[in-house]
Amino acid sequence: MDSKNTESISLTTLQRLPNYLRYLKTCEQQGIVYISSVMIAKGMDLTPMVVKKDLAVAVITEGKPKLGYCVESLIYDIEKFLGYDNTKDAVIVGVGKLGHALMAYEGFSNYGLNIMIGFDANVTTSEVNGKKILPMNKFVDLVKRLNIHIGIITVPKENAQEIADLMVSAGVRAIWNWAPIKLEVPNNIAVKQEDLAASLAVLSNRLKELMKKE
Amino acid sequence: MDSKNTESISLTTLQRLPNYLRYLKTCEQQGIVYISSVMIAKGMDLTPMVVKKDLAVAVITEGKPKLGYCVESLIYDIEKFLGYDNTKDAVIVGVGKLGHALMAYEGFSNYGLNIMIGFDANVTTSEVNGKKILPMNKFVDLVKRLNIHIGIITVPKENAQEIADLMVSAGVRAIWNWAPIKLEVPNNIAVKQEDLAASLAVLSNRLKELMKKE
Repeated sequence: MDSKNTESISLTTLQRLPNYLRYLKTCEQQGIVYISSVMIAKGMDLTPMVVKKDLAVAVITEGKPKLGYCVESLIYDIEKFLGYDNTKDAVIVGVGKLGHALMAYEGFSNYGLNIMIGFDANVTTSEVNGKKILPMNKFVDLVKRLNIHIGIITVPKENAQEIADLMVSAGVRAIWNWAPIKLEVPNNIAVKQEDLAASLAVLSNRLKELMKKE
Repeated sequence: MDSKNTESISLTTLQRLPNYLRYLKTCEQQGIVYISSVMIAKGMDLTPMVVKKDLAVAVITEGKPKLGYCVESLIYDIEKFLGYDNTKDAVIVGVGKLGHALMAYEGFSNYGLNIMIGFDANVTTSEVNGKKILPMNKFVDLVKRLNIHIGIITVPKENAQEIADLMVSAGVRAIWNWAPIKLEVPNNIAVKQEDLAASLAVLSNRLKELMKKE
């Protein structure tokens, strides 16, 4: 959740916000550029008063007299409010030595990046670096709820594809894969493959070149 | 050490081999292409019989009648025998979680690469994955003796430069640096800098692009 204080927001408003998004995206597709709260209310079977109150919670954009709200800005504001644009938080699956090392690595914060939670099939410790380690059965729900879109895979290669599938089903859109296996994912998912062996092999080859020169 | 059985080789022969190398490289620089064992003996103040016996241990190249040995081949054979061309073995300094994970990583062997030994300022376990963990005071000697030219740095960034200097002094020629700090090394040393935070930041940016497109 972004900027505004969410504690005082009613659950019903929160639950309606994704519906606004869906509705506004349909409007956008139909070429509608501006929309009034009355029109939204009509389209969504709500009272204009409810719409005004709901939007006041999530939206920074102000409506223009006679024109109403800019649809694109509404979508942007609500997505931001719901954390749908979250590109900084990540979760990690597989808290073995490598996962542990990544969770404890402090350099990520230089970029505002944050591994929020670790998941493991076999939780042996409840925390690493003040971050929770949770069992896999909490994964999908929590990742969805927190709108986390970056997943890091540090499980053995036998389990990596299964975890990737789970991540995609939970809304993860970018995967940092440390398992030495090529993942099969839908086209709209970004994958960064880490290949430790290839990295060391590159260095070994540079060493060979260096030695040949002498 | 390479191919041939070294157990039956006399220590004096082993100790002389680097001297042959030095002498043969001088000859090569002077433009000498072929050399006889008699010439080597003269140049190095040894008897031809000793030279023949020594070379028989380390050298595969055969001398040509009247011409003698090809100098370049002699150098190549002796270097190979002494392991001076070793581009596959590595040592790691810093056996924390990351170092531990790298030592336990099995993918390296696909490329014939091998992290032979781990070193740590504070040894808490004697072995990882069947590989020894040793204190730092054994570092220089052992790395020199085993002709290891690849060093992996997984110490905190405060100590990384000091370890790099130590590695260079021990004959390491290629460094895989996981500490988030730019190392100062001589020109003839290869460095591969691993930057975890930048890697994750790249993925985060790709995610941003993906989301913008939608």
